[in-house]
Amino acid sequence: MTYKLVLLRHGQSAWNKTNQFTGWVDVPLTEQGVEEAKNGGELLAKRGVLPDIVFTSLLRRAINTANYALDAADRLWIPVKRNWRLNERHYGALQGKDKTQIREKYGDEQFMTWRRSYGTPPPEIDADDEFSQEGDPRYAGEPVPKAEALSNVVERVTPYWNDEIIPELKSGKTVLIAAHGNSLRAIVKMLDNLSEEEISKVNIPTAIPLLYELDDDFKPIKPRGEYLDPAAAAAGAAAVAAQGQK
Amino acid sequence: MTYKLVLLRHGQSAWNKTNQFTGWVDVPLTEQGVEEAKNGGELLAKRGVLPDIVFTSLLRRAINTANYALDAADRLWIPVKRNWRLNERHYGALQGKDKTQIREKYGDEQFMTWRRSYGTPPPEIDADDEFSQEGDPRYAGEPVPKAEALSNVVERVTPYWNDEIIPELKSGKTVLIAAHGNSLRAIVKMLDNLSEEEISKVNIPTAIPLLYELDDDFKPIKPRGEYLDPAAAAAGAAAVAAQGQK
Repeated sequence: MTYKLVLLRHGQSAWNKTNQFTGWVDVPLTEQGVEEAKNGGELLAKRGVLPDIVFTSLLRRAINTANYALDAADRLWIPVKRNWRLNERHYGALQGKDKTQIREKYGDEQFMTWRRSYGTPPPEIDADDEFSQEGDPRYAGEPVPKAEALSNVVERVTPYWNDEIIPELKSGKTVLIAAHGNSLRAIVKMLDNLSEEEISKVNIPTAIPLLYELDDDFKPIKPRGEYLDPAAAAAGAAAVAAQGQK
Repeated sequence: MTYKLVLLRHGQSAWNKTNQFTGWVDVPLTEQGVEEAKNGGELLAKRGVLPDIVFTSLLRRAINTANYALDAADRLWIPVKRNWRLNERHYGALQGKDKTQIREKYGDEQFMTWRRSYGTPPPEIDADDEFSQEGDPRYAGEPVPKAEALSNVVERVTPYWNDEIIPELKSGKTVLIAAHGNSLRAIVKMLDNLSEEEISKVNIPTAIPLLYELDDDFKPIKPRGEYLDPAAAAAGAAAVAAQGQK
């Protein structure tokens, strides 16, 4: 039995465009982001990779990316599950801040540590910060982080992967996960069994479907999967890597 | 305990605009339909009627109406359930046909019987008609009708109402149902215990939230509920009633 999983990072968001750290702040897609999402859905349709169920985070940039992509692929009618465990990494006190300004203020090394270290979270956000999610009704009864490193994202994504996503794959469904740079990197690290060093170099481009075919043990048949538009994916990954540079 | 239910008919679709019978044909919203849906969501937000769960049909005009409305109300993150039992009435062989031409060809009486009689379905659609849903993957394992009267819609909506919607209301959630003129009329008939004669006169306007507060027996506290924009609802209902007239 081969299982099919598709990872889809949201299209350009308002704060991707303005170069701000976003995290759990619920910013919308830009018009370009909407077009990217539709294009991602057309790639799915063209390749005949048709999701039977979609998982999303609780953030509108991922939800709307799924919606536009699935509409374009004529699969808008499939079952949907949403969970905060697929949210972007919480960027703590950096949420809302300009990436270039933070880089200039704290220096390259600290900047890259916050962006790409595995275990070091950024400074915690204050509960009364305008960009804190404290008290947001969508997280009622759930722990709202004050800041997360990628290691924290792996910890919260793993039980959801095991308990909610694996059973759907096991039942033979093609699963789409529409989420974020870091929640998807957490899944890629787990699937490809990457080291902390290896995952630090992985950049996931926006809105290009990344297809994994998985074996009986849910391990990738082709390591690192396959982007449905490899040329666009390479260009997109380079653009992500360059973020925060002058 | 008072339960809160919101019914939302999809915004203008491509075939509302071109005056064609639609039924189960999966046509998109028009730009006007998208704006109507956003406006419906703003009405929800303004009145503080915030859905905790949304039910939709399997048709994109209802799904996208829910998506645009919930995004406007900042509730896009709530759980979603979709089911064919909330689909529009299947219009049989009339699907795709021009309403005015059908009225002229068959006469006013036959036309109004097909549109508004409770128990008389239109002629059945052929399985190989371009507008048949035979073989559509979204209905795999489910019965695809060849034509439905409103009575058939009531029969298929009722078990879904009892088994899936009532339990969510019982748990205290504000429930949004984003669906279609006739699947919502089926629910209104059931809630308000209307006769066949009474329901034949009910026209539901597009994309204006209809709020029902329900008592312990799931009966409306205010018969016929309350449109969140009553003036626009009256104008919209009159426009629906006038469809197919020259």
